[in-house]
Amino acid sequence: MTFDLDAYLDSRRQLVDQALAQRLETIAQSTPETLVSSMRYSLLAGGKRLRPILCLAACEAVGGTPEDAIDVACALEMIHTYSLIHDDLPSMDNDDFRRGRPTSHKVYGEAVAILTGDALLTESFRVALESRHRDPRRAAPLADTVFEMASAAGAAGMVGGQVIDIEATGKRIDLPHLERLHHGKTGELLLVSVRAGGRLGGAQPAELDRLSRYGRSLGLAFQIIDDVLDVTADLATLGKDPGSDREAGKTTFVDLLGIEAARTRAREVMASGIAALEPLGERAEALRALARFTVERDR
Amino acid sequence: MTFDLDAYLDSRRQLVDQALAQRLETIAQSTPETLVSSMRYSLLAGGKRLRPILCLAACEAVGGTPEDAIDVACALEMIHTYSLIHDDLPSMDNDDFRRGRPTSHKVYGEAVAILTGDALLTESFRVALESRHRDPRRAAPLADTVFEMASAAGAAGMVGGQVIDIEATGKRIDLPHLERLHHGKTGELLLVSVRAGGRLGGAQPAELDRLSRYGRSLGLAFQIIDDVLDVTADLATLGKDPGSDREAGKTTFVDLLGIEAARTRAREVMASGIAALEPLGERAEALRALARFTVERDR
Repeated sequence: MTFDLDAYLDSRRQLVDQALAQRLETIAQSTPETLVSSMRYSLLAGGKRLRPILCLAACEAVGGTPEDAIDVACALEMIHTYSLIHDDLPSMDNDDFRRGRPTSHKVYGEAVAILTGDALLTESFRVALESRHRDPRRAAPLADTVFEMASAAGAAGMVGGQVIDIEATGKRIDLPHLERLHHGKTGELLLVSVRAGGRLGGAQPAELDRLSRYGRSLGLAFQIIDDVLDVTADLATLGKDPGSDREAGKTTFVDLLGIEAARTRAREVMASGIAALEPLGERAEALRALARFTVERDR
Repeated sequence: MTFDLDAYLDSRRQLVDQALAQRLETIAQSTPETLVSSMRYSLLAGGKRLRPILCLAACEAVGGTPEDAIDVACALEMIHTYSLIHDDLPSMDNDDFRRGRPTSHKVYGEAVAILTGDALLTESFRVALESRHRDPRRAAPLADTVFEMASAAGAAGMVGGQVIDIEATGKRIDLPHLERLHHGKTGELLLVSVRAGGRLGGAQPAELDRLSRYGRSLGLAFQIIDDVLDVTADLATLGKDPGSDREAGKTTFVDLLGIEAARTRAREVMASGIAALEPLGERAEALRALARFTVERDR
């Protein structure tokens, strides 16, 4: 039996897009129009939805339903989108395109772009906790999940990674340093996406440990391939300025390893992540397919 | 018996300052130096600590200890500080002074200032949840508290209020509109500070309702007095540019009511908030004194 990843991705992406649109409708009831419009512009821009889908797939891999994790899945995409908006700002990476469209500050101006990021980040924690009263046993795993989301997004995670990134620009850094930078900027939230889904799906400690090993590998492989794509893809496929990292004087995995060795390293890392899922059996097939997709994707 | 507010404020402020410094030390262990330094610069700048002290006082008013609420008290001050940093940015209010010192972006540059706000906001949710495992009964009230914090800080609260504020600049708005704007920008987080303390101190539903009425009044009175001080205080006392709201073309309570009627309105609102605390007896004396202090303060 082969797993139909395309069908799985389509159905889960649709689920996530619908859930995000619903949450925006709720937010719109008590939020200034400009802010709702700018939140919608960035959030419903047709991203890959990798984090929410990872979260749902991990939940299903331990016997949960998409319903168990959909709130947190939305929250993860909101955090990811906030980080893109702020990273793109003129005082940061100063990028004009994202997901194939002008960046938030190009459309709404800098003030509203900053506030849109702030709103998405803040609302993510509210959205994640929306179902806390559905079942009295949900409060504890949700509290753990929000704690991990905030750790991954915070000073030691995404924000710290962005500061290191700014400070390292124009300097050559070595491989362990680059891996640490990317674990903070991207890897940890991918890891938390997988762990959150597992936890909300009722994972046993040993299962959660397996999922964590998978999530850590996926985070690293994802970033290596991102660097490869920055060199090999074009604007239409990538949806953002290709070559922008190199032009900005950032060290990439391609600089340190070359394109082919970088691809090989991503495949090796990912193979060990897939191996960790072995005891989870067939239910983890979506996670395995997602791992292969992450390494073989072209955008 | 008269309540010694000065002694209470001193002891609780010290408690909060120590707790914030400890949490920064923990954060420093895995965070780039620049970011820790800028977080410390803004967070330990000697603010009034009104939100954390309200939280502690509400906790004590229903029989809890400061220990029960100290994490959340720190989190509330972190959210408040993040909002000041982002509000002061060149693309927003473009303020040069805050709490008597140059604003974050004046010292660290715009990129790091934005990221410092992002980090404080994100870390606030992590800090709030740090004690979730201390007692299995804590997860549920903490989840409720984080949910309310995020609601107050989010699109319908602080961020939305700031967007309305930007859009209303240069336009004359009426009193109900101005009250709504400030409830979002300031009032709701003050309300949540009181409710969070009450909830973590084990408040009964009726007590939480009383505390909410008090918190709502305090939020409104606080903002009216802020507008009065913007006109009557000087830089040395206020710690930020006086008159800056008027110069920026913002409608204030003083514009709509005049200085004396604004003061009277603040006192009336606060009196009804203090009246709501009646059934809580002597344990709520700190909250009553804080209310009087909020209305009579000179900075």
